[in-house]
Amino acid sequence: MFFRGVNVDLLHEKIISDGKIFAGNILKVDSFLNHQIDVTFMEALGEEIARRFSSDGVTKVLTVEASGIAIAFPVAQSLGCDMIFAKKSQTKNLGSSVYSSPVESFTHGCVYDIRVAKEYLHDDDVVVIVDDFLANGNAVRGLIDIVSQAGATLAGVGIAIEKGFQDGGKKLRDDGIRLESMAIIDEMDAVDGEIVFRD
Amino acid sequence: MFFRGVNVDLLHEKIISDGKIFAGNILKVDSFLNHQIDVTFMEALGEEIARRFSSDGVTKVLTVEASGIAIAFPVAQSLGCDMIFAKKSQTKNLGSSVYSSPVESFTHGCVYDIRVAKEYLHDDDVVVIVDDFLANGNAVRGLIDIVSQAGATLAGVGIAIEKGFQDGGKKLRDDGIRLESMAIIDEMDAVDGEIVFRD
Repeated sequence: MFFRGVNVDLLHEKIISDGKIFAGNILKVDSFLNHQIDVTFMEALGEEIARRFSSDGVTKVLTVEASGIAIAFPVAQSLGCDMIFAKKSQTKNLGSSVYSSPVESFTHGCVYDIRVAKEYLHDDDVVVIVDDFLANGNAVRGLIDIVSQAGATLAGVGIAIEKGFQDGGKKLRDDGIRLESMAIIDEMDAVDGEIVFRD
Repeated sequence: MFFRGVNVDLLHEKIISDGKIFAGNILKVDSFLNHQIDVTFMEALGEEIARRFSSDGVTKVLTVEASGIAIAFPVAQSLGCDMIFAKKSQTKNLGSSVYSSPVESFTHGCVYDIRVAKEYLHDDDVVVIVDDFLANGNAVRGLIDIVSQAGATLAGVGIAIEKGFQDGGKKLRDDGIRLESMAIIDEMDAVDGEIVFRD
């Protein structure tokens, strides 16, 4: 709620006050976004992402485990629809009838398949994809692939923090995909801790 | 909200209507709890767990990734505090100063360490541990171990679905740990699909 009318300055402030930059373009926001969760803050962030897709008739919010869940949950609350989190591992609990797509992980340095059970995504669904970070865009590309396999409609992509100095966001926009990033970082410096946001 | 005053009958109904039982004591509730998330329903479930700990001065809700997040989030919303999800893998994004505890997984058939950064859990914290399922109790034991390492106070444990025919819940209660399970399944049959709930 407190995002409305003040753009997303509060997220900028939170990244500046709580974020820690490490070599290798790592931004750690463990204090509120992906380890400890500031639930009140995430609610507001989720409301703002939801507001941007409020006229699109969204029926499903789609993310990937694990840290995407804490941002997709409040987006789905605000939109009044269900959410789905794609699974990264083949567990006993997921059936064999799944959509799957390979994703290369920047954080973990490996390739894994993400999976969504076919019974939860259909060709009459309108989907918003949500994630905490967008860097090279591999996870989002995998989720878009799954939406496409299901024959569902993609309303767009909502991201908490986009690393604008990597090319995932640019390529998505070039492909005509609607991308709503709540904060875009154009530069960050592990030595002096400086962060430059896109206007 | 709609849980209040009607006990937890709605969860029983949801498990009966949507749950699927498989050989090996697998209960699949992918339609609302741990793949697709029925956000409205989880909000109500979270409110009810929160209500049971509303006089305990809880400062942190603790769970483990991934499916615990979607139940811990609404519990933390109702209690008005932060949540933390323990991580299952050593990622670049988690620092070296962590509490960790080994957990044997029933679902995945392996042992993994769960980790919580020391900076987010302190000796003045009052913690509710929340998870989607309780079977043999290994994940909850690992989380209790982490609360203990931090010198924090454990208010208790809130669980969506306890498999009462496994001994995790009994052992926790025998150890004097306050356990609030929203549904306890005493018997379930993969052949005829019958489920018997504890009163």
